[in-house]
Amino acid sequence: MKNKGHIEEIKVVKIGGNIVDNPTALDAFLKDFHKLKGKKILVHGGGVMASKMTIDLGLETTMIKGRRVTDFETLKLVTMVYAGWINKNIVALLQKNGCNAIGLSGVDANVIPAVKRSPQPIDYGFVGDTTPNKVNTNFIINLLNDDIVPVFCAITHNEKGSLLNTNADTIAYTLAVALSAVAKTKLYYCFEKEGVLRNIDDPNSLIQSMTKSECDTFQKDDIIAGGMIPKLYNSFNAIEEGVSEVIVLHAQNLLSERGTKLIKENENS
Amino acid sequence: MKNKGHIEEIKVVKIGGNIVDNPTALDAFLKDFHKLKGKKILVHGGGVMASKMTIDLGLETTMIKGRRVTDFETLKLVTMVYAGWINKNIVALLQKNGCNAIGLSGVDANVIPAVKRSPQPIDYGFVGDTTPNKVNTNFIINLLNDDIVPVFCAITHNEKGSLLNTNADTIAYTLAVALSAVAKTKLYYCFEKEGVLRNIDDPNSLIQSMTKSECDTFQKDDIIAGGMIPKLYNSFNAIEEGVSEVIVLHAQNLLSERGTKLIKENENS
Repeated sequence: MKNKGHIEEIKVVKIGGNIVDNPTALDAFLKDFHKLKGKKILVHGGGVMASKMTIDLGLETTMIKGRRVTDFETLKLVTMVYAGWINKNIVALLQKNGCNAIGLSGVDANVIPAVKRSPQPIDYGFVGDTTPNKVNTNFIINLLNDDIVPVFCAITHNEKGSLLNTNADTIAYTLAVALSAVAKTKLYYCFEKEGVLRNIDDPNSLIQSMTKSECDTFQKDDIIAGGMIPKLYNSFNAIEEGVSEVIVLHAQNLLSERGTKLIKENENS
Repeated sequence: MKNKGHIEEIKVVKIGGNIVDNPTALDAFLKDFHKLKGKKILVHGGGVMASKMTIDLGLETTMIKGRRVTDFETLKLVTMVYAGWINKNIVALLQKNGCNAIGLSGVDANVIPAVKRSPQPIDYGFVGDTTPNKVNTNFIINLLNDDIVPVFCAITHNEKGSLLNTNADTIAYTLAVALSAVAKTKLYYCFEKEGVLRNIDDPNSLIQSMTKSECDTFQKDDIIAGGMIPKLYNSFNAIEEGVSEVIVLHAQNLLSERGTKLIKENENS
C-alpha cells in the first residue's frame, strides 16, 4: 500500500492507565485531545482496570520489574480490557466530541507486528517486542490524510496467529520513531504528575528540560527513580532515532505543553 | 470522505458464536474465508463465549425472544469479548494466513452509528438499532480498495458517547444493504447446519432455494421455527432493499456455496 499524501507534523500522545480509569479525568483529557491541532495519534494504557479485573476473575498478577507477566489467561484479559472496553469507549467519547477516531491494535492491518520476547533470562509470557521499522506507516498516513484519528491500544501480534501484550509507552515510542521517517514527530507522555520533579511531593519542582546526560546525573543522585527511569530512557532513544521532541507532562497540561521537555544533548550546550 | 474507486461486487460473510467458540472450526473457516475471491467483509458473533464469561463473572443473563438484555455490566462484558478477544484473535488468525484484515466495531471511524432501542414495550438495555443509510460506506470502500478486509464485531454506538450491543446478523444485514447502493452485494449467513432443512435432524433435507412466500408457508407449517425465523425475514428484507443474494449455509460450505439461497419472488416464477 502506498500512502497518498504528505504530512508536515504528527503528534503522538500517550495516556496512562490512571487517567483511563478515571471517567472525569478521561473525559476532560479527550476534550483537550480533540482540540489539539494538526495530525495526531492517541495511545492508551489500561493496566489499572486490567489489574482490578484480574482480581475480580480470581487470576494472579505477577509483575517483574514493573512489567506484567502475561500467561494465556492474562493475555485474554488484557486483550478484552485494552482492545475491547477501553479502546472502544475512548473512540466513542472522541466521536461524541466530533473527533473521527478509529480504534486499532497492532494486529489490525498488521500495523505493528511484534516478536514474542525470548523466555531467557525472564519468561514474561505473551509479551511482544516491537521495532519501529516494521510499522506499517503508510496505513497510518492514509488514515491521517482522511482526517481519521488512530487510537491505539497496546496489543500486538507475532504474525503467526498469536496476540501479544506490549507496554503502551513502547507502542507510543515505536509509532513516534516509525512516523519520524515520514514527518516531524512529537511524542507526549501524559500522566498524573506535572512532569519530572526534583522533589516528587512538590509540583513546583518541575524540571523544564533535560538532556540524557542530565538524566544520568539525576538518576545517580536518586532524584529520578522507579517507573520513570525506563520512560525517560525510552524517550531519549526516541529522540536519538528521529523524534523531534518528547514531553513528559500532566494530562491536564496537554494543550499548554507545560511539562518536562526531553532534548538533544547539543540543544542545551 | 470520498471513496477512491469503483468495486464490482462485495461479499458480506457472517459467522455465528458456535464457530467462533470452536478453535478448529474457526481456523478451518478462516482459511476458506481467505480463499474466497473478490472484495469481502467478515461479521462475527460471539454470544457463546460471552454467555460462558457471564457465568464466570457471576453476572445474570436475561434473554427475551432470543435477544440478550444488555445492562451496563453486560455491555462491558460483550464489548470486551466481541470487540476485544474475539475480534483481535480473528484478525490475528487472518493475518497469519496472509489476509490483511482489520478489526472494526461500528464505533470506529463512525462506520455504523446506531440508535438506542426504545425501552417500550421491552427494555433491552444498551441495545443499538442500525439503519443501512447511516453506514459510512466510503470508509469501507476505501479499505476494500486498499485490499484490506474489514472484520466487524457487533458493537455499535449512539454517537453520544455510549457503546451499544447489536445483533451480529443485523450488522451483516445493515452492511450488506448499505453496500448494495455502491456494488453488487452477496450476503452469507454461516452457521452449524447445512442451511434451512425440511427436517432439522436430516442434513439431506436441505431446501436449496426459497422465496418469501414459500418461507411464510414453511413457517405456517412449523417447518421453520425459533432463531431461524428472524434470520430468514431479515434476509428477505435485505433482498428487497438491494442485496443480490442471501445464502444460509454451513460454515464448511462457504466456498462451494451449498446451502439455502433466498431469492426474489419473481426469480422462482
